[in-house]
Amino acid sequence: MMKNMPDKDFKEKLKRVNQFKIKNNTDIVDLIKHLKDTGFNAKRLALACDIYKEMIEDKECVKFFGQAGAMVPAGMQGIIHDFIEEDFIDVFVTTGATLTHDVAETLGFHHLQGEVDIRDLNDVKLHEEEMNRIYDVFLPNKVYEGIEDFVSKLTIPDYNMSVSSFLNFLGKELPENSNSILKICSEKNIPIFCPAFTDSGLALQLGFHHQKLNLNHFKDMLEMVNLAWDAKSSGVCIIGGGVPKNFIFQSLQFCPNSASYAIQITMDRPESGGLSGATLREAMSWGKINEKAKYSTVILDATIALPIILWYLKKSKYEH
Amino acid sequence: MMKNMPDKDFKEKLKRVNQFKIKNNTDIVDLIKHLKDTGFNAKRLALACDIYKEMIEDKECVKFFGQAGAMVPAGMQGIIHDFIEEDFIDVFVTTGATLTHDVAETLGFHHLQGEVDIRDLNDVKLHEEEMNRIYDVFLPNKVYEGIEDFVSKLTIPDYNMSVSSFLNFLGKELPENSNSILKICSEKNIPIFCPAFTDSGLALQLGFHHQKLNLNHFKDMLEMVNLAWDAKSSGVCIIGGGVPKNFIFQSLQFCPNSASYAIQITMDRPESGGLSGATLREAMSWGKINEKAKYSTVILDATIALPIILWYLKKSKYEH
Amino acid sequence: MMKNMPDKDFKEKLKRVNQFKIKNNTDIVDLIKHLKDTGFNAKRLALACDIYKEMIEDKECVKFFGQAGAMVPAGMQGIIHDFIEEDFIDVFVTTGATLTHDVAETLGFHHLQGEVDIRDLNDVKLHEEEMNRIYDVFLPNKVYEGIEDFVSKLTIPDYNMSVSSFLNFLGKELPENSNSILKICSEKNIPIFCPAFTDSGLALQLGFHHQKLNLNHFKDMLEMVNLAWDAKSSGVCIIGGGVPKNFIFQSLQFCPNSASYAIQITMDRPESGGLSGATLREAMSWGKINEKAKYSTVILDATIALPIILWYLKKSKYEH
Amino acid sequence: MMKNMPDKDFKEKLKRVNQFKIKNNTDIVDLIKHLKDTGFNAKRLALACDIYKEMIEDKECVKFFGQAGAMVPAGMQGIIHDFIEEDFIDVFVTTGATLTHDVAETLGFHHLQGEVDIRDLNDVKLHEEEMNRIYDVFLPNKVYEGIEDFVSKLTIPDYNMSVSSFLNFLGKELPENSNSILKICSEKNIPIFCPAFTDSGLALQLGFHHQKLNLNHFKDMLEMVNLAWDAKSSGVCIIGGGVPKNFIFQSLQFCPNSASYAIQITMDRPESGGLSGATLREAMSWGKINEKAKYSTVILDATIALPIILWYLKKSKYEH
Repeated sequence: MMKNMPDKDFKEKLKRVNQFKIKNNTDIVDLIKHLKDTGFNAKRLALACDIYKEMIEDKECVKFFGQAGAMVPAGMQGIIHDFIEEDFIDVFVTTGATLTHDVAETLGFHHLQGEVDIRDLNDVKLHEEEMNRIYDVFLPNKVYEGIEDFVSKLTIPDYNMSVSSFLNFLGKELPENSNSILKICSEKNIPIFCPAFTDSGLALQLGFHHQKLNLNHFKDMLEMVNLAWDAKSSGVCIIGGGVPKNFIFQSLQFCPNSASYAIQITMDRPESGGLSGATLREAMSWGKINEKAKYSTVILDATIALPIILWYLKKSKYEH
Repeated sequence: MMKNMPDKDFKEKLKRVNQFKIKNNTDIVDLIKHLKDTGFNAKRLALACDIYKEMIEDKECVKFFGQAGAMVPAGMQGIIHDFIEEDFIDVFVTTGATLTHDVAETLGFHHLQGEVDIRDLNDVKLHEEEMNRIYDVFLPNKVYEGIEDFVSKLTIPDYNMSVSSFLNFLGKELPENSNSILKICSEKNIPIFCPAFTDSGLALQLGFHHQKLNLNHFKDMLEMVNLAWDAKSSGVCIIGGGVPKNFIFQSLQFCPNSASYAIQITMDRPESGGLSGATLREAMSWGKINEKAKYSTVILDATIALPIILWYLKKSKYEH
Repeated sequence: MMKNMPDKDFKEKLKRVNQFKIKNNTDIVDLIKHLKDTGFNAKRLALACDIYKEMIEDKECVKFFGQAGAMVPAGMQGIIHDFIEEDFIDVFVTTGATLTHDVAETLGFHHLQGEVDIRDLNDVKLHEEEMNRIYDVFLPNKVYEGIEDFVSKLTIPDYNMSVSSFLNFLGKELPENSNSILKICSEKNIPIFCPAFTDSGLALQLGFHHQKLNLNHFKDMLEMVNLAWDAKSSGVCIIGGGVPKNFIFQSLQFCPNSASYAIQITMDRPESGGLSGATLREAMSWGKINEKAKYSTVILDATIALPIILWYLKKSKYEH
Repeated sequence: MMKNMPDKDFKEKLKRVNQFKIKNNTDIVDLIKHLKDTGFNAKRLALACDIYKEMIEDKECVKFFGQAGAMVPAGMQGIIHDFIEEDFIDVFVTTGATLTHDVAETLGFHHLQGEVDIRDLNDVKLHEEEMNRIYDVFLPNKVYEGIEDFVSKLTIPDYNMSVSSFLNFLGKELPENSNSILKICSEKNIPIFCPAFTDSGLALQLGFHHQKLNLNHFKDMLEMVNLAWDAKSSGVCIIGGGVPKNFIFQSLQFCPNSASYAIQITMDRPESGGLSGATLREAMSWGKINEKAKYSTVILDATIALPIILWYLKKSKYEH
């Protein structure tokens, strides 16, 4: 069971760990460059930034972006919007929660936060005050009333349209908004896939007000496979794991070259066997990631990762 | 912002931490009883066992069980089967992966494991050997060929049936098997909900071989709400989080009394804001759990939790 | 960079994942035997139990046990005491906190717990009530007064004695007690090493009341190296990581064969680079663990692991 | 058991979550300012930056900095050096490992890294190649030979000097170096406390070559208490937990006002009861943190946190 590594190549590859300094003129590109030669998650974050940059510069690469986790409540709506606006994403796979939160914000119903320690809060009283809590962010009940109002007035073109077609339609129905994920995807014709759509407040409202609605999930599943099948080259950025991660990966098995680039931002761990924390290496055994792929998993809260990665990509695109 | 606790009641409630001993005749019920008066996750596990037992003894309680994570590959198929067989579950919500793995095992295509350290494995060579890895468990490609063969021969009664009706049908089509989750649910008419069904190998095969398949997801979403609405009392056991957790909880908002019992077995953490790691207290702000509910979150790998809890419940049911 | 695994041996080593059942007569030895052929942390726990058993049966093996974490407050005092009483430990390395808590309990000053959700507690009020909190366990201030009283009355034979000699002396000074870790180590002459002794309430009290105290830490460091040097065979069980893990491992570099058995129970993870979460494989690069060693890391709360492992070892010793 | 929160003040405190954008001229101070009004760990990081800034501007505040974890191997030596150089730290508490790694780098023996996936490495072969692994960073054996050589030549003024005095002396003995933590602490007379000093390669070498060495740990323990006792106001920044966290906190009980500022950067979690993951609120029950303190715990790899915080503090100090 001997592995060949390390061999003489190994020692030649090694360089000093970069004991770097922050200077007055350090910018995000400098910092990421420094971190590339450090260790642990600093290094992995820098590698992730680099890989994303390469993925963008590879014009043949179809960029799949999977996102799970309450990113919009936590302030990341504009950030994800800009990933899409800057053409950093070609296919967006997400959860019903993200779409629900995006619709809310876009309609002008906002998530709230403040200088308050959640340990001082009584969740029962919050409920009486019609305040729903997502860790340290709050959603007043009237947000759902706003969504309900909007949804009840929708004239849905086809009750059996695919989920992704419906989401494209929904983006058009939303008001102009420089932060809306649904809006920008609609405008740029970026497909949004949401395999677990009925696991959301948005879908509940749709179901209550449009009793005959039966959006087609199977069309989307096959469409995703086609997108992967047709991709000469593919890359994947997974934020948080969950259904988006599995849905993208199960389709990548049908991409002739599998994924050549893979980035994963997660707080989950591999040892409990779940997919969300599984390593990108494990995905190679499934043929979902190419053996020559460039990849990095960063154990990092996505609310810190997303701004940093976008900042790096924008600076690289516009200044360097 | 003063909390009233601790008050004089608080000190009266306190007892010594139980510095217990394991004796020759200690059995699982004794152990759990000891752990109830300890601390940390030992205590929380004991509370979870107790709450589950109460939930079972409450004849009016509708018991919702949400399960995410690769439990069948890790050897928990028979355990989950027996939770159902023993009437410990009334409504089962799970992932497409669990159903896929259950079909595989039930058809005689088995997951594999051995005395091997995964760090000695080359995932690229595993792929060449047609071995797919789920952490330290392996799935040969032919497992999927077996599923494909079975699926392609199915005569599906109605291409627009709900996902849960389809799963009930599928359970009938599977061969007799004392471990199968789909089979036992079918036999006992326990509804299985799978909101993210198209996020699975099973659904991919169904979609490839039955191109017109368009299982209705919306019917199930509304059906879940009805089940919660009609429940005089409800309890929930969440294994792993994910879509099953959210799907059950979003429906519990419609249960007149919300959930009176709540157990959560997870390795996720709350601080990154995701639902999988969110506390059960947070769910109270949403009206998903009753303020008087008994609840416990145990930070524990489900492959260790499930056997222990089942063992405790069976011993309590049959011997104590 | 090709690894040789998997090779043809690999496929031959694989067996079915054990889809086991819990029966009426299942005992802990049966359960662990079943779990050996499952996956994830269930399998790793079973392997850990097995390895510990082998380690005990290897009469030449010096068994090093490192323990960090608030085990005594959480109810594990009797469990750890019995590991020692049953001769499952030859060298005990721990934190000042554990010794402090052990002295408290042994003097009759108890840790407290109750049916209270810590989120209902106001830590500021707890402080006013002279209640110190360790997660969901409580230590009244008078516990420290009790320790202070005992400590102030000690007649310390030699102000420059080694820490381990002092702890052996301390064990003798404590009253008879069937749970005390210090007492049982003293009685059985099991050396206790505590490299970070001055990081503890016990040491603070000693320092306040015995101003000239200057326990020798360097003697213990060299003594540990000698113990490892003299060991024909060694095994290590690490609970929680921290200083005990490093102190044992740094000495094992001097054991001619390094450790042949290694068990680690931790909730930490490797990716942040710290030693507490580091894999046992990494220790092989340091020559701390033998390449042929049997090892297992279990991601599991020690308050659940310790009772299970002890129960398994006792059942195996006395009944099987 | 009712908590008073939320009350009418609560709703007034709430503001919209900041759905911010990254612009071309965004700098680190802008970003942190944006993140203050978001959620999850992004918000907590921003709060931590703010609190550290306030702590620095509070001229009466004695700033205690506890650091555990392999920061120097991961490239953070210069960063920690500059925290000290910029007067952001008044008392430094660390592990023997950090001191060992700092001595190595300062003597010109460097940690190594490269473009290599650790899963391709055989730790047994690394050992044969005399390469010691710390996750994805490597330490050649000759590093320890270099430390040994330096240590053996030291003329230690007093074999019974306190550990902190010894470290001050050691700093003077090291060559000039713009990155060295020991050097800069010596030059600026910043005391370094290391309660678990004998848990380190540096101490092993010292013990081997200076057999009579018996550095006084008790003097340091009492000195730390005095520093806390004399502090009109104190603040604490904990990187990683462990002994440094406990040692600082046990002394803060003697600070008349406890800590008024507290920052914690950790990957550990509270539920397993250990101190490393314990909340800062829990510390209030011990009187270690003042009830009016400003505090923030960030779940974040310190290799990402430290550069960001330093960058923010330097930009704030020099430009804003």
